[in-house]
Amino acid sequence: MQVPSYQTCTHAVLRLLATKPVILFCSYLSLATIWHFNDLGKWLEASKAFRSALYKRMANGAKRKQIQPINDDVIDASDFRELCHLGIRADDADVEKEFSSVQFVFFCKSANSALRMAEHIGARLPNALPYGMEPINLSNNNTYAVYKVGPVLCVSHGLGEAPCLITLHELTKLLRSASNVFPYYFLVGKCTGLGAEPGTIILTTASVNGILKPYFETFRLGKKVKYASVTDQHMVALAAEVCNELKVKHVKGLTLGTNDYYEGEGRRSETLCCGTSETKKSFFERAQVLGVRNFRMESTCFAAFCNRAQIKAAVISVVCLNRLHSEDAVMSECSNMKNEQLLFDVATALVEKLLPSP
Amino acid sequence: MQVPSYQTCTHAVLRLLATKPVILFCSYLSLATIWHFNDLGKWLEASKAFRSALYKRMANGAKRKQIQPINDDVIDASDFRELCHLGIRADDADVEKEFSSVQFVFFCKSANSALRMAEHIGARLPNALPYGMEPINLSNNNTYAVYKVGPVLCVSHGLGEAPCLITLHELTKLLRSASNVFPYYFLVGKCTGLGAEPGTIILTTASVNGILKPYFETFRLGKKVKYASVTDQHMVALAAEVCNELKVKHVKGLTLGTNDYYEGEGRRSETLCCGTSETKKSFFERAQVLGVRNFRMESTCFAAFCNRAQIKAAVISVVCLNRLHSEDAVMSECSNMKNEQLLFDVATALVEKLLPSP
Repeated sequence: MQVPSYQTCTHAVLRLLATKPVILFCSYLSLATIWHFNDLGKWLEASKAFRSALYKRMANGAKRKQIQPINDDVIDASDFRELCHLGIRADDADVEKEFSSVQFVFFCKSANSALRMAEHIGARLPNALPYGMEPINLSNNNTYAVYKVGPVLCVSHGLGEAPCLITLHELTKLLRSASNVFPYYFLVGKCTGLGAEPGTIILTTASVNGILKPYFETFRLGKKVKYASVTDQHMVALAAEVCNELKVKHVKGLTLGTNDYYEGEGRRSETLCCGTSETKKSFFERAQVLGVRNFRMESTCFAAFCNRAQIKAAVISVVCLNRLHSEDAVMSECSNMKNEQLLFDVATALVEKLLPSP
Repeated sequence: MQVPSYQTCTHAVLRLLATKPVILFCSYLSLATIWHFNDLGKWLEASKAFRSALYKRMANGAKRKQIQPINDDVIDASDFRELCHLGIRADDADVEKEFSSVQFVFFCKSANSALRMAEHIGARLPNALPYGMEPINLSNNNTYAVYKVGPVLCVSHGLGEAPCLITLHELTKLLRSASNVFPYYFLVGKCTGLGAEPGTIILTTASVNGILKPYFETFRLGKKVKYASVTDQHMVALAAEVCNELKVKHVKGLTLGTNDYYEGEGRRSETLCCGTSETKKSFFERAQVLGVRNFRMESTCFAAFCNRAQIKAAVISVVCLNRLHSEDAVMSECSNMKNEQLLFDVATALVEKLLPSP
């Protein structure tokens, strides 16, 4: 038999590549598989090791390779004309000057809790809330509320990812154009716990989405994109330090953030079937093993946004009920208030710690 | 050479299946590929044909096989105790009796537009809004607004998918427990158009998500699920008939619904980079070719929910600005009001058409 020349071989491979790319790829895959795993046991072991390594990386808050790099995401500050949802215009008196002194932004769920928070912090910081005054809503729009007390801004972000992202986009635009020193962002509020008892402060190390992965998935001009939703570990450590000083019960852990209050968080809406109680139980167990300690709808998109915009941020929540024991918020008004006060105390102490000494 | 027996062959294949499933699968794939496509041209042609068939099915509103079946989704009506977000309790006076007469539900974006709509429809329906009266907000919660005029309910759904889904879940629970005859649902409001000029009424045949596919993707107990987001074609035809009778400019088409006002709809937020203007232009062109006529954040989850719950529903929007020409809503207050009146007129005529004659 004649040995084929080198040229003939190359030609044959190139021709195959042009006409039968799928076959060539499959052959390559088969050969590679034979090479690496020569029995089923090894294969299973490898896939198990891969999975456990992945979970470990998730818990450590490492970013996966497929997630968008953040380098190209921050664009320069530019002048703004109007923030159409927040209802703040550039020609409102002294807007840029007043907002240039902001050093901390707290994102609360409702307008009422933003006001309560502003009053609480204002009363404790020097010269933030003069005697006989109360903060007014700076937003000219019914949808949102923005209160300013000294260097602190308390903003309502609404319910779920869409209004939260709008607040983040518009407020960041305003603050970027007002000052070069960029403020800290905090997502604060009540939440439901997974194994954590009411009254516990949860410090989010990373936020996971509905399939327990540490990224926020969204659409960008017809493509699906994933953004890492890991929080700033330095801020988490600082918040833990404050909790220790105040002797407040706290836990560091993952937070589950989905966009769907009923189906995403495994609640029974009694309108549409959302899985059996067995699947719910096994899902909750899986989440708990992975390190999930609470549920917070906006946490994933908040962490992802701050990551992309290179903002120092933290998610601090107080547990109102333990989802493992009950479904409905049956807390008394009194203990709800007590929990909120606890959260406000932690927030105020954090501001005092981070404020540069005069 | 000895020919191997049938038994030996079977044994070899079974052993291969147990130890090297990947190789066996790849070999099968290669053979199948060779069998079906014996040159590259045919392969490309087939993939093109597949894609165009898929688009055709999308335009016709056909449901794809991978989408959840809806049969198991509707659960029986049951008594409710409290709707925690809508702020309506079962022990509020006559709640179930009063809600049993509801035949139409209109979902508006804000509380103000829900009130304006209730007043408009109430003034035109007999005995719906007595002289000297105005509708009051039935929700005890600041987040939502619920107005009732005769057989019509006008509800605010808030911004984005999360609050819209909460309204849908809770209201459907209330209405299911109040009556056996189930009302029609309409998502109404202003929107931005894609090629459609301001003042055009858009009747949504199906709502597509951020990657232009006709389903709503969400998480259900740790799994990703997809629900078809096609609207009721009979309702679309009826709405078109009403528009024809009123001589109102209208278009049937697809609606793009994503959860992200800035990134999902290709807006420049000036905070984070959201793609170049070239990629945006090509995305808008692709969407337009596919049949997308407008943007509406809540349309995908609304259509998917009504599909699952087997509710007769329609999405009717009026265009405020054409995204192909401008980015900012620079409409005058006057023409905005005119557009809203147009939408209210269509809605009222639709109610009058669907109301059973006394």
